[in-house]
Amino acid sequence: MRQGIISQEVNGHQESPGAAEDEGRRRRVAVVGAGLVGSLAAINFARMGNQVDLYEYREDIRQALVVQGRSINLALSQRGRKALAAVGLEEKVLATAIPMRGRMLHDVRGNTSVVLYDPNSKQCLYSVGRRQLNEVLLDACDKLPNVRCHFEHKLTSANLREGSMEFRNPNQDVIAAKADLIVGCDGAFSGVRQQLVRLPGFNYSQEYIDTGYLELCIPSKSGDFQMPANYLHIWPRNSFMMIALPNQDKSFTVTLSMPFGVFAKIRNQNDLLDFFKLNFHDALPLIGEQQLVKDFFKTRPQHLVSIKCKPYHYADKALILGDAAHAMVPYYGQGMNAGMEDVTLLTGILEKELRLDEALAQFTESRWQDAFAICDLAMYNYVEMRDLTKRWSFRIRKWLDTLLFRYFPSWIPLYNSVSFSSMPYAQCVANRKWQDQLLKRVSVTTLLAAILAGVAIFSQRFI
Amino acid sequence: MRQGIISQEVNGHQESPGAAEDEGRRRRVAVVGAGLVGSLAAINFARMGNQVDLYEYREDIRQALVVQGRSINLALSQRGRKALAAVGLEEKVLATAIPMRGRMLHDVRGNTSVVLYDPNSKQCLYSVGRRQLNEVLLDACDKLPNVRCHFEHKLTSANLREGSMEFRNPNQDVIAAKADLIVGCDGAFSGVRQQLVRLPGFNYSQEYIDTGYLELCIPSKSGDFQMPANYLHIWPRNSFMMIALPNQDKSFTVTLSMPFGVFAKIRNQNDLLDFFKLNFHDALPLIGEQQLVKDFFKTRPQHLVSIKCKPYHYADKALILGDAAHAMVPYYGQGMNAGMEDVTLLTGILEKELRLDEALAQFTESRWQDAFAICDLAMYNYVEMRDLTKRWSFRIRKWLDTLLFRYFPSWIPLYNSVSFSSMPYAQCVANRKWQDQLLKRVSVTTLLAAILAGVAIFSQRFI
Repeated sequence: MRQGIISQEVNGHQESPGAAEDEGRRRRVAVVGAGLVGSLAAINFARMGNQVDLYEYREDIRQALVVQGRSINLALSQRGRKALAAVGLEEKVLATAIPMRGRMLHDVRGNTSVVLYDPNSKQCLYSVGRRQLNEVLLDACDKLPNVRCHFEHKLTSANLREGSMEFRNPNQDVIAAKADLIVGCDGAFSGVRQQLVRLPGFNYSQEYIDTGYLELCIPSKSGDFQMPANYLHIWPRNSFMMIALPNQDKSFTVTLSMPFGVFAKIRNQNDLLDFFKLNFHDALPLIGEQQLVKDFFKTRPQHLVSIKCKPYHYADKALILGDAAHAMVPYYGQGMNAGMEDVTLLTGILEKELRLDEALAQFTESRWQDAFAICDLAMYNYVEMRDLTKRWSFRIRKWLDTLLFRYFPSWIPLYNSVSFSSMPYAQCVANRKWQDQLLKRVSVTTLLAAILAGVAIFSQRFI
Repeated sequence: MRQGIISQEVNGHQESPGAAEDEGRRRRVAVVGAGLVGSLAAINFARMGNQVDLYEYREDIRQALVVQGRSINLALSQRGRKALAAVGLEEKVLATAIPMRGRMLHDVRGNTSVVLYDPNSKQCLYSVGRRQLNEVLLDACDKLPNVRCHFEHKLTSANLREGSMEFRNPNQDVIAAKADLIVGCDGAFSGVRQQLVRLPGFNYSQEYIDTGYLELCIPSKSGDFQMPANYLHIWPRNSFMMIALPNQDKSFTVTLSMPFGVFAKIRNQNDLLDFFKLNFHDALPLIGEQQLVKDFFKTRPQHLVSIKCKPYHYADKALILGDAAHAMVPYYGQGMNAGMEDVTLLTGILEKELRLDEALAQFTESRWQDAFAICDLAMYNYVEMRDLTKRWSFRIRKWLDTLLFRYFPSWIPLYNSVSFSSMPYAQCVANRKWQDQLLKRVSVTTLLAAILAGVAIFSQRFI
């Protein structure tokens, strides 16, 4: 293997060591990771006049034959839409997205029922392809003269204090680069964060859940969807569940989430088919037995991790955004949306023209509680989604929430505040607590009144 | 700098690739870190017949002129003593240790008062020098033919799956080594744990507290201690505190713990002396003004971190013990004791002659809840120690606990169960909860009885 060190001239600014000190001048910003959050961040930094280098360890997703290792569709909601709108890309993305108006629940007998997300104002989630969305964002990067994309650049080391990084390309060349600010948008296993974790005072936790997931597929049939397209399909089975989101090519991507212990019990084709016949009776013919067996045993179930940390920055030298800062389990559909909202909030703070270290500190301070809250909510929603079989209590609450929301617009149900508003996540949680308390008080009062009325009637009869 | 790769023959066993599979045969065990837990672990692995290589990045502490970077004395209690007794070293260590029978509290006016740890059976903590204790343990390693010590070997990389490690010596030579089992006893910032953190399913958290600490010294005077020697001295000041432990050379090592914000306000000699005159009036002349100024400004306050993780092992290939597995804030004096207890428990499990992967899994399973519990207790005790100024409630509870403990030996107060017994830490906590509930119930019942009696008397008078 050829090995060499290539010193990369970063947008022609490498010769200006004093750049960071000159607050009036724009900076050399290195964004590590050209996924959804990274490419959106690059656009925003560039629009503010910075010189942006965008590094990605994979090949250009626009040229990739197969996009591996990540779920291929995602639920875009309010926070993601707002971030896209801010850079003029919302309409372009929604044009090819598939609206999902509610959950379609599949019971063990194959019966389905629908729970709309928002029966009042008909707001919905949008199923978008990761690849399409990433392409739109990268195309927008290409149109900006001050963004330079570097694909197949894998970060191998970084010195945040000095703003220096080393990458390797597929030839194993070592590529050295420098920047005034390093922005890690490099996902749950972020290399930039790995440097932050070593700094004293950096709080960090990674928590794996005992559940693994596998992706399967319900292909299109005769050029059409095999199930109603405008829903997020759920097969809740208490300790495990399956969901399906529609794709543009009229297939569905199916995600099976189960404890590793349950996965381990399915050892061969017979186990698998028996398991599906028992639990996902209606989905089995749609997936197809042969394809199911092939896809199920092709890869091992993947782990799911929830990551919280604080702070998100180091002085005026480094910053992490998106999954690098707050990876969450995927059960609230907020991972991408929260990451994109990071960019919206950061841009808002940077536009105040504070000193950069102060601006980054303000970002951490204003963001960490909300990031922790959505990580916790995602974990909580995992239990709720699996348990939708106990759905009468869920439906009664849903009905009550919808009713109250209609007549008292300030009664925003939790799911709506998270998915269809930009209310800070922590406030969504506080809001829900307040609603729970009120409902509890009302029901206790009602119960007491009923008892008192009963006693009154009883006394009148017998005294 | 000279660089080369030296392949290290590990106790002549490197040529036996099948060693790990042969359960009857003893293993090549690499213990990384020759501190208190590492050297104790090496002794135990060697006594079970394994070939042990003990690697330490510092020089041999027995030859070191100055031991840097770690607190120089420690409070040895029951769990540490038990672990030392198991390898026949307890008496040797206690011979030079200084018993501490209780806390001596210093108030702001300089008045002192004593709270004994165990007024009933006079159990006490022992102040031991880190260096002396480490020397005793390393000397014991030297006496075992199957332990080989490698000082100035800094772990730079490890492949746990393959059992391979790379070290660097001060000449920057790369030294390659192999082992069947790698045991990380390399402290809170463990390099072995760094490998575990990357494995899917490894839960990890590091939490820094907002408090920093600095070490100061009360030297001996005319060949004697300047304060009563047989106590752990505490200056509790609510949001901060100072403690002092006696050393063999008749000095005291003083540890000042304060929020970083308070440290930051002390910018010069005048600030410092004013601060000490106000808060540690009686300690100031003992430390000496000049020495205080010198020591205080010599180093920056150190961070304190609490680390929890799970599991502690990887298959039959790697294991972490002590601070590497559960670093805690130092306020329960259990860091070293818990680490040594790890070794006791592990040895007990290994002696059952299970398959190694099963034995290590059993160690994780039987240890993590207790490790989490002592990390939490240490955090909780930090608040208790600082707040001892509110000491009437503390003393009343202490008095009640002592009384109950005397007449009902099963009523073991929390501090005693942690420091003077081998009760699993989690059980110590459960025990305390049960005691709290009982006391609460008794006091509510007493209060009710008093009210009823009052009502009865009142009725008799007025009806």
